[in-house]
Amino acid sequence: MLVLLCVPCHFMRGTAEGSLVTFSPNQLSRLVMVEPTNVNDALAHVQQLLELHDVDRAAEYLRTLHPADSAEVLTWLEADEQALLVERLNPPELAEVFAQMSEEDMAEVAQHLDVEELADVLDEMEPDAAADLINELEPQEAAEVLEQMDEAGPVTRLLAFDPDTAGGIMNLPPPSLRRQMTVAEAFAFVKKHYRDENEIFYLYVLDRFGRLIGVVNLRALILADASQTVEEIMNRDVITARVDMDQEEVAQILARYDLLAVPVVDGENKLVGIIAVDDVVDVIEEEATEDLYRLAQVSEHAEIFSPIPRAIRSRLPWLLINMGTAAMASSVVSLFESTIAQAALLATFMPIVAGQGGNAGTQTMTIIVRSLALGEIDRQDALPALGHELMIGLLHGLTLGILVGTMAWLWKGNPVLGVVVGLAMLGNLLVAAVAGVSVPMILKILHVDPALASSVFVTAATDSLGFFLFLGLATYFLGWLI
Amino acid sequence: MLVLLCVPCHFMRGTAEGSLVTFSPNQLSRLVMVEPTNVNDALAHVQQLLELHDVDRAAEYLRTLHPADSAEVLTWLEADEQALLVERLNPPELAEVFAQMSEEDMAEVAQHLDVEELADVLDEMEPDAAADLINELEPQEAAEVLEQMDEAGPVTRLLAFDPDTAGGIMNLPPPSLRRQMTVAEAFAFVKKHYRDENEIFYLYVLDRFGRLIGVVNLRALILADASQTVEEIMNRDVITARVDMDQEEVAQILARYDLLAVPVVDGENKLVGIIAVDDVVDVIEEEATEDLYRLAQVSEHAEIFSPIPRAIRSRLPWLLINMGTAAMASSVVSLFESTIAQAALLATFMPIVAGQGGNAGTQTMTIIVRSLALGEIDRQDALPALGHELMIGLLHGLTLGILVGTMAWLWKGNPVLGVVVGLAMLGNLLVAAVAGVSVPMILKILHVDPALASSVFVTAATDSLGFFLFLGLATYFLGWLI
Repeated sequence: MLVLLCVPCHFMRGTAEGSLVTFSPNQLSRLVMVEPTNVNDALAHVQQLLELHDVDRAAEYLRTLHPADSAEVLTWLEADEQALLVERLNPPELAEVFAQMSEEDMAEVAQHLDVEELADVLDEMEPDAAADLINELEPQEAAEVLEQMDEAGPVTRLLAFDPDTAGGIMNLPPPSLRRQMTVAEAFAFVKKHYRDENEIFYLYVLDRFGRLIGVVNLRALILADASQTVEEIMNRDVITARVDMDQEEVAQILARYDLLAVPVVDGENKLVGIIAVDDVVDVIEEEATEDLYRLAQVSEHAEIFSPIPRAIRSRLPWLLINMGTAAMASSVVSLFESTIAQAALLATFMPIVAGQGGNAGTQTMTIIVRSLALGEIDRQDALPALGHELMIGLLHGLTLGILVGTMAWLWKGNPVLGVVVGLAMLGNLLVAAVAGVSVPMILKILHVDPALASSVFVTAATDSLGFFLFLGLATYFLGWLI
Repeated sequence: MLVLLCVPCHFMRGTAEGSLVTFSPNQLSRLVMVEPTNVNDALAHVQQLLELHDVDRAAEYLRTLHPADSAEVLTWLEADEQALLVERLNPPELAEVFAQMSEEDMAEVAQHLDVEELADVLDEMEPDAAADLINELEPQEAAEVLEQMDEAGPVTRLLAFDPDTAGGIMNLPPPSLRRQMTVAEAFAFVKKHYRDENEIFYLYVLDRFGRLIGVVNLRALILADASQTVEEIMNRDVITARVDMDQEEVAQILARYDLLAVPVVDGENKLVGIIAVDDVVDVIEEEATEDLYRLAQVSEHAEIFSPIPRAIRSRLPWLLINMGTAAMASSVVSLFESTIAQAALLATFMPIVAGQGGNAGTQTMTIIVRSLALGEIDRQDALPALGHELMIGLLHGLTLGILVGTMAWLWKGNPVLGVVVGLAMLGNLLVAAVAGVSVPMILKILHVDPALASSVFVTAATDSLGFFLFLGLATYFLGWLI
């Protein structure tokens, strides 16, 4: 039941303030302001109709929503409710709704379709979204579905690319201009070939080998005289993405150069696809969430109200891994049990030394991980970054070491305790700097996502070495501490 | 010197693989492939020319780069080098470069201009970027600059809005169509009024009161017959943002509905501005970085190679705050020093209990913070979220409690120790669930960014209460532990 209460609510908030106005398709012919869509309400309405066994009206209502909203509603429904509705929607309708879903949600809803129905829906979809969905299917089912499709060719071509690369997120290239066309001819070309395209971002210009030589935006086309040639008005300053470029890098390029779309080319500069900014916005959000979750040791598929078993699958493994590193820290402490038995006040300062090391390590690690993700640094910056962070760690360590040392001295009235705590703090902040830089950098060099396991290793280092430094020094100076 | 080694390198990477092709403006008249821009090399080249006192050639070279790249180079230069180059660039050139910089970087470079020069540059800039820059100036200087500008009106109007709202990131509305225009008239209108616009995303249609009644995309205009009216081809399904909507919410709307731009309206549905997707991409990246950094207790202005004093300012305050919460945890431990003196093996298990509580709390807190940021949940979801997380905490607590309890029993040969450690673990995972949900939710209700201080409070709770539970239970069962 929890699931019903947790539908994304920012549209509801928007609604309450009257800030989001959505006209639904069936009002297109009138000039009437309608109430904005409230996904929460919409979901409740659909569920009510389904409880009354009025599936037809539920489906009819779903059709009146923006596809992004009906996708949301469908996603939040229980599997049996989904099944009822999916049966009522025809392939073009399902294709429109699927286009607004994540890969995982598409795959979930697609389970209610048999191979033939799914093939019909996929035929209606944009090839890139169709390829995303097929990627989620079992190999056997994927093959059957492709077999059944009328136009599997474009999808099959896209399936060849790694999903995390430019090739994996691109769509097939739109019909392109030739340089010797006049503006009038270009208009006629667009009228003829762009009837079925959703959106025109830019018009690309190819030479006779299919190589990209320029770009024309619609504004330039409209402003030009009918007798000018495409060559005269095209821009040769084309920023492209190579088909094997990482999707995160593609996102950075679109963001950096403020582009609506970027053409994708192969090694010979032939136009093989196009990536639009709306797809990249999703990539940017996904990558940011992924980094955030992985750093917090949560699987990137976690969702706030996911069913309990799935929530546990996304978090418990990390806690178990941490159990291992915590056990390591514990066994370090265990080595010094006789020291602690003689000077129990040491236990009091263990959390400060280890905790501050952990905090400083997390700071450094997070900056490194994010800077790697945003492309601000790369592997070759490891050494300068280490020098920079060691300097900061030294200054932080001196400050915090003097502070905590003085505090320990005044609190427990023992200057030697102050020196031991202070030195351990300084040492652990240097450990934090080294671990905070080297762990994500080494993961990057090993081609593992630096966000993935950094926290585990950095905390393991600052905990174990922090305790070792502190209790080791204490053992050495034990005579002065008892 | 560190600064010189750390220029963002993903373009270099792109370059090495030949994947990013940038034609520079001076090649526009030729059809020659040129080497892509490498910001690292570009920076070195500019610095070399400046060392040879050849400022003219350095400025000339900068002009050949894409403005996004020259902005990058300028940002990484030392202040005195910046000053030399800024002097050589004319206002339109500077305006183009400023448009590619963050607010902080603009303000830094603008320091090299006097009031009159800055006013000339601002006159050339888009009003939204100009307003961003003026927001960074001292009030006195801002007033002087506005005084000196030829066209301060649009900028002054935008300055009235909170920078974090739709009003704060929007640009002024583009010239708009009227519904009775024919397609031919609309073409003539665009040719006349859009000469100076950078880009056309959509054409908006207003009634005679300036209220938004529809939208026409350029594709629809090109595909239509010349004699059709705007009313016939316009789409009344307009998704808008209210001028006082939070920028993060605007970003969510553009992302959700895959829009290139969203019109901004006031309470009477009058068109007051437009927000394009490229501005929103920056918002999404900034907000994600901000959340990530704040959760890691780093100021959101942190940058990987920022000068040491600035780096310390962005991190040390957080470490000092944590010193306070760590001292709290320490004083909890201190309460139990006599217990620890009698059973030093307890110190061994302190890190596991507190650490696992901290990890689980961070997991929950991160999911809550991110879900709030993405608008997937809101304040009213606090209770269901708490129930959900308590259930997960209970199951995690039972699993980890049994595991660590058994481990403690077998390791130290004392079953009571196992029970104490296990129970403390269970209790602390419930603490983690409560703190992980309630801290960010309370901050949200208090209108503080949930990412800002959540880590401090959650760790304070899991550390202090974790130690209290564990050592308190141990004191109770002390007879069996010695």
